[in-house]
Amino acid sequence: LDLKHTIDYIHQVAPELPVILDAKRGDIGNTNEAYAAYAFDYLGADAITVHPYLGAEALEPFLVRQGKGIFVLCRTSNPGAGEFQDINSLETGAPLFEVIASNVADKWDSIATCGLVVGATYPDELIRVRSIVGNRPILIPGIGSQGGDLETAVRNGRSSSGGGVFLNAARSVLFGSANADFADAARTEASRLDAAIRKVR
Amino acid sequence: LDLKHTIDYIHQVAPELPVILDAKRGDIGNTNEAYAAYAFDYLGADAITVHPYLGAEALEPFLVRQGKGIFVLCRTSNPGAGEFQDINSLETGAPLFEVIASNVADKWDSIATCGLVVGATYPDELIRVRSIVGNRPILIPGIGSQGGDLETAVRNGRSSSGGGVFLNAARSVLFGSANADFADAARTEASRLDAAIRKVR
Repeated sequence: LDLKHTIDYIHQVAPELPVILDAKRGDIGNTNEAYAAYAFDYLGADAITVHPYLGAEALEPFLVRQGKGIFVLCRTSNPGAGEFQDINSLETGAPLFEVIASNVADKWDSIATCGLVVGATYPDELIRVRSIVGNRPILIPGIGSQGGDLETAVRNGRSSSGGGVFLNAARSVLFGSANADFADAARTEASRLDAAIRKVR
Repeated sequence: LDLKHTIDYIHQVAPELPVILDAKRGDIGNTNEAYAAYAFDYLGADAITVHPYLGAEALEPFLVRQGKGIFVLCRTSNPGAGEFQDINSLETGAPLFEVIASNVADKWDSIATCGLVVGATYPDELIRVRSIVGNRPILIPGIGSQGGDLETAVRNGRSSSGGGVFLNAARSVLFGSANADFADAARTEASRLDAAIRKVR
């Protein structure tokens, strides 16, 4: 309920801002139906992150949602991301994260807007994924506490028109201060990141 | 809270039964810390299912839990499971789901008991995974509403000592009846499945 109140409040005070639920969901279709209903109908989120492992068939309940955004995990921001994501395909020679980007861009028949998640901590992979997915949106975590470079992430991730990137920071904004001024500290950090992103774009 | 009450009740009336939370979680380490605390410390679950996509490094908060079980998604039960799970590795020629089984069995240094999830709807893949993971437990969904064959699943999934398989059914048990006798219907279906599994083992 706290999450719903938070999202309701964001929609009320900033209706132009999309709310992206970084929930990393991914189950069989029957269960994804309920996740999609919870995220979009109950919570009122505008987009959600999902795991690709079960394939497009299982993700159908998300992909058919007109007006919603689906961000598919492609290259995650964590240090050990390469264990499976870097496995090269015998058929094409491309690593798994690129196969996922290609399938989403070329084969997934999505009514929702379908983008990818690529961590700022992997700037070279960001260039690769942008070259595969055209103008599709890319959600880029990792510029805050995880230490990814913001400028490089924007430069490497932006589309040919200079857009298509959503950079998110959680802990560095949420925990800017442990004292009573936490709200001001969060605002300061968010504004700083916003200005830095706009400068590079 | 309903989920916690349900789990508390199961532990109370059937303390010998492990409660496996089929939550399919998988995030960066920092977030997995909170998921592990929620599943094991708050809910009191004995095991949880997780996504392999971020690798062992991210799953560490689950893997370090002594006395708990971690079931890693390997071959999922849905019709479109092969989209990425069947991609063959350039290095070894093995499909992704087998690479995951190999890594979990040979490379993941887990304090928790670490098993795999393989759908009953893929009996040949079940043989492959069992041959890779030795005596590790395999969680096998798909014998209920999804139509996987129970006998074949037990035969193909069991370890050399005839154990190591957990077969789960959800909808066929939960929704055995839409009327006031739903509890009896659930018991009847669960008993039927239990007897059928014991007969094959």
